[in-house]
This record gives sequence, C-alpha cells and structure tokens, in this order.
Amino acid sequence: MKFCSRCGHQVFSKIPEGDTRERFVCDSCKTIHYENPRNVVGTIPVWEDKVLLCKRAIQPRLGFWTLPAGFLEVGESTTAGAIRETFEEAGAQIEIGALFSLLNVIHAEQVHLFYLAQLKEPIFSPGIESLEVALFSESEIPWDDLAFPTIRKTLEWYFSDRKLGVIHFGEPTFSTHLDDIGYDERIDRKYRSS
Amino acid sequence: MKFCSRCGHQVFSKIPEGDTRERFVCDSCKTIHYENPRNVVGTIPVWEDKVLLCKRAIQPRLGFWTLPAGFLEVGESTTAGAIRETFEEAGAQIEIGALFSLLNVIHAEQVHLFYLAQLKEPIFSPGIESLEVALFSESEIPWDDLAFPTIRKTLEWYFSDRKLGVIHFGEPTFSTHLDDIGYDERIDRKYRSS
Repeated sequence: MKFCSRCGHQVFSKIPEGDTRERFVCDSCKTIHYENPRNVVGTIPVWEDKVLLCKRAIQPRLGFWTLPAGFLEVGESTTAGAIRETFEEAGAQIEIGALFSLLNVIHAEQVHLFYLAQLKEPIFSPGIESLEVALFSESEIPWDDLAFPTIRKTLEWYFSDRKLGVIHFGEPTFSTHLDDIGYDERIDRKYRSS
Repeated sequence: MKFCSRCGHQVFSKIPEGDTRERFVCDSCKTIHYENPRNVVGTIPVWEDKVLLCKRAIQPRLGFWTLPAGFLEVGESTTAGAIRETFEEAGAQIEIGALFSLLNVIHAEQVHLFYLAQLKEPIFSPGIESLEVALFSESEIPWDDLAFPTIRKTLEWYFSDRKLGVIHFGEPTFSTHLDDIGYDERIDRKYRSS
C-alpha cells in the first residue's frame, strides 16, 4: 500500500496513537488503513463413500487437486460462500453440514474453513476455475497431487473421523478440527505455484 | 474506496473480466481491489462456574458488556488472536480450548469466532478498551446490557451446553455452533452505538 484509498495522498507506515502495531496511515485525511487476514471457505462434498475434488485450472497450483473453496465475499455468510464456491467450481448442489475444519495459513494471511456437505445428486461439472471434477474413494485420492496443505489435512481428518464413526451428517459428534499452517520452506517448495 | 492504494489513480466500480461481482478497479495500473469480511476473534474465559466479561470503554456500545474479542491481525492465528485479545482487554491469561461458535455478521462484514477458555488463575484487570472486568455466574449475567447479538447467542449456547453436559474442556462433544446475524432494524436500534 502506497496511497490512501480515501483521498489519494501518500501513506506512511507508523504505529497510530493508542495502537501497538504499524499501520498504513494517511497524514492528509488521517485514515488508518487496517489489513486483516481473509477467509477461504469451502466444502467436503460427499456422495456415498466418495469425496468430490476439483483439478485447478488457475494458478497457484494449476493442475493440482483441491476441495471446492474460495474467498468469502462481502454480503454473504461463510456457509453461503462455501455453497457458492462448490457450485461455481464443481457445478454441484449440496446440503451443507457442520463446520469441519479451521486452518490458519499465517504466511498467506488466510483462514481456511471447510464444511461437511452432501451432494444432492451425483451431478457435477467443472466451472471456469476447474479443469476436471471427479469423485474419489479414500484409496483413490491423489494424495501426491493435492493443491494445498489445508486440503490434505482436512481430507486426512475426514477419513480418520469416518473410521471413528463420528461423522453423522445431521448430528456430528466431533469438535471442529483446528490447526495452523506455519510458514515452512519445505511445504512452500512442495506447494509452490507450479 | 476512491483511489488506487498501489498507484494513487482514481478507481472505478466495475465487474472485471471473468468475474461476477463489482470491484474497485484501477484503469491505470489494472489492480483489482477485493474487499472481504474481517474476523473478530474472542474467548469465553471461565473460572469455576463463572464467565469473565468486559465492560466496553470504547464505541460502539460503550458501557455495555462483552466477551473479550477483537479483530484478527495479519501474522497471527485465530487462536493466537483470541488469546491476545483476552489479555489486552481483560488482563487475563488463559488456556484455550475448542472453537465454540462462528457467527456471520453480514451487515458489519464480520465473522465472529469464539473459543472455549479457562482462566489460569482468577486474575484479571481492565485493559485500555475496558472500563471494568468481572466474573459472572449464569444468573448474574447482565443479559439486558450485552454489547452485541453474537455475545448473547454465544453465552446462551454456552450455558445451554453446560446444562447438557457436553462442555468438556479437553474433549468437547459438541459441534461448533453456527449462525448468521442478518441485518435487522430492531437489532440495529437495540445494539447501535449508544
């Protein structure tokens, strides 16, 4: 950020009075510009014993597999956003369930949220951001070609919980899984835009 | 938003190619400025059968009671943010537990996240954004003087779950509570800055 989005003057990084962190501050109109992490919302869409994945048609990680997910928009709830992304990326209509996982991706300034979901019908098709959409049983999941660490973690938790018998769509008996994805060079190399 | 924060030129609201929503776009440097909801992270800090609340020293809702909570910052996880806010607003050190509630506050462009928490010791003191901090049993909660609907909902769920016996700090057997706070004029009037 170099210029004030309100008045167009140059901004400077400084700690505002009464604050503890550096912010971009406009000396002209006095606006303090806060920057905060963004939410990525998605689903684990299930049909029978299979999970629906999308092969990414866009960078980063073009050609790698992901759960349908994308940035939460202003004016929608996290569930509405997850339903929208599932339709936009996978052409699938779902019934949405419990919040399954919350993962902080600190270095990307993102919080990833995944909900349980059931396909209403086994109907799906790639949206503009997907090359391909397909259902995978646990043994068919392309573990080495997943797009992001949050997708791997969420799928691992999902199949583990299913074995434990705690995934009941209407009345789950698990607590939302929580984890942080710290900046890790090995992970960064592995999951870097290809 | 009137000016491009990258190059300082005027921005215009338009639907970028391949997008479906209006964004502020800079015709000069071609930057698309996305706007997304922000996360407010907080805790339900408990000591014995009592919950710690803070009386707000700042607007909005100055003088009303809240759970300790505030905006998630870049560079921290949602749990780290909730721990930080609990210390900043209530001077309390906690052990943090499961994600208890997620509430979308659509009109405020916010997502509120509250975690279970246990005070390490019954030690607390008002931070700069609080007038007063105190422990309340269920019957002592100032229900008519709570700051925001998300605080009321979270406290109602908490005491209800406690009666159901599903709040086990280490191993909870509830699923994270989810709800949306839509724009409601009555709520707006009731909870408007006083």
